[in-house]
Amino acid sequence: MSELRQDPTTYDWVIIAKERAKRPRDFGNKHRNRRSLPERDEECPFCPGNEGRTPGPEAVYGSPDNWRIRVVANKFAALTPEGSTDREQAGMFRKTHGYGRHEVVIESPLHNRCIAFMPDEHVEELIRVYRDRYLALKEDPNIKVIIIFKNHGEAAGTSLEHPHTQIVASPIVPPFIRRRYEIATQHYDNTGHCLYCDLLYDEVRQGLRIVSETGYFVALHPYASRYPFETWIMPKIHSSSFGNIADIEIPELAKLLKEMLLKLYNALDDPDFNLIIHTAPVDDEHKTYYLWHIQIIPRLTLAAGFELGSGIYINSAMPEETAVFMRDFQST
Amino acid sequence: MSELRQDPTTYDWVIIAKERAKRPRDFGNKHRNRRSLPERDEECPFCPGNEGRTPGPEAVYGSPDNWRIRVVANKFAALTPEGSTDREQAGMFRKTHGYGRHEVVIESPLHNRCIAFMPDEHVEELIRVYRDRYLALKEDPNIKVIIIFKNHGEAAGTSLEHPHTQIVASPIVPPFIRRRYEIATQHYDNTGHCLYCDLLYDEVRQGLRIVSETGYFVALHPYASRYPFETWIMPKIHSSSFGNIADIEIPELAKLLKEMLLKLYNALDDPDFNLIIHTAPVDDEHKTYYLWHIQIIPRLTLAAGFELGSGIYINSAMPEETAVFMRDFQST
Repeated sequence: MSELRQDPTTYDWVIIAKERAKRPRDFGNKHRNRRSLPERDEECPFCPGNEGRTPGPEAVYGSPDNWRIRVVANKFAALTPEGSTDREQAGMFRKTHGYGRHEVVIESPLHNRCIAFMPDEHVEELIRVYRDRYLALKEDPNIKVIIIFKNHGEAAGTSLEHPHTQIVASPIVPPFIRRRYEIATQHYDNTGHCLYCDLLYDEVRQGLRIVSETGYFVALHPYASRYPFETWIMPKIHSSSFGNIADIEIPELAKLLKEMLLKLYNALDDPDFNLIIHTAPVDDEHKTYYLWHIQIIPRLTLAAGFELGSGIYINSAMPEETAVFMRDFQST
Repeated sequence: MSELRQDPTTYDWVIIAKERAKRPRDFGNKHRNRRSLPERDEECPFCPGNEGRTPGPEAVYGSPDNWRIRVVANKFAALTPEGSTDREQAGMFRKTHGYGRHEVVIESPLHNRCIAFMPDEHVEELIRVYRDRYLALKEDPNIKVIIIFKNHGEAAGTSLEHPHTQIVASPIVPPFIRRRYEIATQHYDNTGHCLYCDLLYDEVRQGLRIVSETGYFVALHPYASRYPFETWIMPKIHSSSFGNIADIEIPELAKLLKEMLLKLYNALDDPDFNLIIHTAPVDDEHKTYYLWHIQIIPRLTLAAGFELGSGIYINSAMPEETAVFMRDFQST
């Protein structure tokens, strides 16, 4: 018999389909072998030498000719800093200009160097760059939400192989984020605690789905995972906004993020994945009602009609099994 | 500049990315040609002669040896009628048994006959079968929501080619459905009207996104479409539940559904798609706050990190352009 589990952060339900469950090692990428990419691709707009093919940089780390990380505006920006954020209403239809920012963080000059294989200090700098850009983008008073995300591989929606992260700064707080925030606020009003801190406390106490733990962070496969091998990295010290991450936390986060991505790479043969930094709206970054965290979603399965029509996801893996599998997996 | 549009039924926002927009005819399936399937596949558990490979039928239309449509329990059911629907709580974690039903409607004995190419009367019978199963499944007092959906093609999440529809009957009303219902109820309280009927009225009045219209139904590409070529079929006469569809409406719905699927098939070269019948929870099927409707989602694009992290979808097609393209497209 399957099990219906409720995500305490969204109230969404997930079907954990034990009968359909595959063994953890039977998941994995069957599509291609990304290991064979070259260090440099002449056609790649993100490779050194092709800097002219991207819009003028927003920030460069290193020298212009010998950069380590480069931040540019997205050439095909979903949102641009033009127009007003006023809503226009015509009958039932409401719209506004696509105001906002859309940046690309080119993570490395090397075309084939994904985070799992970067030196620790490089991942640390990358996390500092994410924070720098968050702090720069929120200076615009129209910006209310900043979403930092990464699409790795074709099934995760990327079109460019060169390792990069995207940042979208939006004037709109979407219901998706507002709802999570409201649920967390309600929990705070009822209990006086941060919902996510309580959740993390129970996860650590149960110890069934923990993959790795450091002084400041915990990596786990959540109780109501929607996706096989879905991974959360949560800070142990309460903080609602990624923008407030402290320097002292960054080396540990870099190490843990690398470890999780390297385990995925080796255990599942370089699966396509999305990585998302969830963080409170800009105006709420000092509240006690939310906890920023990183979500990694390997794209091993597809949302089909049932998921799209009900919001209930069917997960054919047991988080308890995948977490233990990943915890015990030796990457080296 | 792109445009942010709000879906009046969910309050979700969509980015209509005009700059990224492709012309309607540049969408389409690049994967395979399903037209070459045989009429019968010996290996297919849904083909005639292999009836023993499915669980005993829930319903057969035609004779057991010469059936037109067959309904069976899903061999890999996500939900099964076992256990209680009581919730169990342990710390932050809530769960319940995977109680429910999961059926498969085998739409035709022919392995390669999709709805677009069925005779009208066969599609009419199929819609009556959907209604029969809805009415049968809701007899179980534990069942609160019935989701009828179809996954066509690999990118839509199907593993079996033989044309089939799935029905999941769930004891849980998920937040995804509850939220739509609440928004519609709020609109009713504010205006005295059904939200969806008001929406349909404005769509017809504007006339910008209508693909086809019959006496009882309208097919359109919604204002805030999340997906290119997303299509809704809405009844003109208010009814919150598909279970209440009248006999007199069925021939028109069958014709319109066929027309929409045939246009998609020909215009986009048999794209993978999901089809979902959205309908009110069982306990609310006579309320004035919701309108059942069919949603067709061609799987031409992928949700990436931005969509998964914000709930804001980027649609690279203008619904006004795709609707006119489909309206004018001649299938024959």
